[in-house]
Amino acid sequence: MKLTILGCYAATPRSFTNPSSQVLEINNHKFLIDCGEGTQVELRRNKIKFSRIQHIFISHLHGDHFYGLVGLISTFRLLNRETDLHVYGPKGIKEIITLQLKLANSWTNYQLYFHELQSKEPEVLFEDEKVIVETIPLKHRIYTNGFLFKEKPGQRKLLINEAVNNNIDVSLYQSLKLGKDVVSEDGKVITNDLVTAPPDPPKSYAYCSDTVFDTGIIEQIKDTTVLYHESTFLEENSDLAFPTKHSTAIQAAIIAREAGVKKLILGHFSTRYGDISPFKAEAVTVFKNTDLADDGKIFKF
Amino acid sequence: MKLTILGCYAATPRSFTNPSSQVLEINNHKFLIDCGEGTQVELRRNKIKFSRIQHIFISHLHGDHFYGLVGLISTFRLLNRETDLHVYGPKGIKEIITLQLKLANSWTNYQLYFHELQSKEPEVLFEDEKVIVETIPLKHRIYTNGFLFKEKPGQRKLLINEAVNNNIDVSLYQSLKLGKDVVSEDGKVITNDLVTAPPDPPKSYAYCSDTVFDTGIIEQIKDTTVLYHESTFLEENSDLAFPTKHSTAIQAAIIAREAGVKKLILGHFSTRYGDISPFKAEAVTVFKNTDLADDGKIFKF
Repeated sequence: MKLTILGCYAATPRSFTNPSSQVLEINNHKFLIDCGEGTQVELRRNKIKFSRIQHIFISHLHGDHFYGLVGLISTFRLLNRETDLHVYGPKGIKEIITLQLKLANSWTNYQLYFHELQSKEPEVLFEDEKVIVETIPLKHRIYTNGFLFKEKPGQRKLLINEAVNNNIDVSLYQSLKLGKDVVSEDGKVITNDLVTAPPDPPKSYAYCSDTVFDTGIIEQIKDTTVLYHESTFLEENSDLAFPTKHSTAIQAAIIAREAGVKKLILGHFSTRYGDISPFKAEAVTVFKNTDLADDGKIFKF
Repeated sequence: MKLTILGCYAATPRSFTNPSSQVLEINNHKFLIDCGEGTQVELRRNKIKFSRIQHIFISHLHGDHFYGLVGLISTFRLLNRETDLHVYGPKGIKEIITLQLKLANSWTNYQLYFHELQSKEPEVLFEDEKVIVETIPLKHRIYTNGFLFKEKPGQRKLLINEAVNNNIDVSLYQSLKLGKDVVSEDGKVITNDLVTAPPDPPKSYAYCSDTVFDTGIIEQIKDTTVLYHESTFLEENSDLAFPTKHSTAIQAAIIAREAGVKKLILGHFSTRYGDISPFKAEAVTVFKNTDLADDGKIFKF
């Protein structure tokens, strides 16, 4: 998996910081998560091919998370896109976008599908052979979802030398990868674990922004490989977190620790802070493997 | 008057060019004309105080002319703006903006007035003692207006030495500036032109974007000081201009020449061109006093 942060600051775009947007590359997909104003420019800057983006996940309808969407959809049209585009977001997003396309008399020349969300329970948004994406219902000032991206368990790994030594015909290798026992050319039953190793553990990525400190999400994101959790505020402004339904760095770290995730990435920093390094300093007191998002930063895991 | 170009390129924002937006400073007003995606960042970059913008004029509802508006309105709210804001634009603009504010549950804490336009005749949008702003109906793929900003004629200039020499009481100076004749302290009638000079000729600015080549606008913009006219295409692509309802540099220059304007500024360049200097080279063959807009460029007149 590769995560490219296009923007990770709250509220309002500035010449040197961008509102929320990121691209998660997983098993040949490029999933766009949130799309604040200026996202299309950041995609260009990060050399991410527009046509590779086929699924856009919008957490909620605050401007810093989706005001760049209509422009991106329009640019796709100008670039003569032919690939389908799927947009997942709160109910209302379809009306916002289609109203603007209608008034501009600029319908897309590609298929544009809206998947409007209103459930307060987790639901599966996308699934193929290798990946599954589901919502993480969050608590914010308006209806909001995080997103959980999970690799499915892979096939078992064939130990090729063992397979040859045990006289197993090549035509049976696929059965071995699927975990089945087989019969060798000399008629012996070969149990699967003799000639295969377990697959790599599947990785997962949880995007939780924006949200108040909410331990209710811990069960769903248990043991996630990487958690991106909003931390709008530092401790000095912790009194603002609950009323605005945002989190502090420490609160994000508590969620990470309780969920037993491997790594925590903090983001959605309030633009009131000139320096974001205190976010890490505060979070590591609770959860050691914490890193800070920043615009243009790439994480591989 | 001072014109700051925030963006002057067509279609889609890029990391090095911005879609249409500009600020006209005239008699203590800062009028924002069009508001493509990224405009608020360009306002910051050009150090234009947000609170000074009280009137926004949107030419039409193609994204490259207004996708930055909702973000700017939201940012004004986040900055605790108190000043009224007036938005002038095609019918539909109010629904687009208010739908997004409603779904975000983020109403503005300042007064936001929409003045929706649908007339195909010129109409006055704003008027005070010194300035008048009217629409210039344009022909484009959708309903579009340009805008004409005109200074009103100023007061006559008092020739102070002449006034003293003619024994005119100070209390009569204002009458002189208003063009009236007065009686001197020694009882003589002093005709106005003896002690005053004519005011500076009022200046005017016409913004015409987007539009097909349309000689119908010439009468309204006759003798304008500065004309900003779109020139999306060079001659090599002139076949694209009419079907897309845009203009070439030469066509813009013909309008400037026929209207007898003092100066022509070209803008709204198609992003297909790596170098914009040919726009000027082509236009000056028809109208000499032509200049090119460019992002961040300032014109004083």
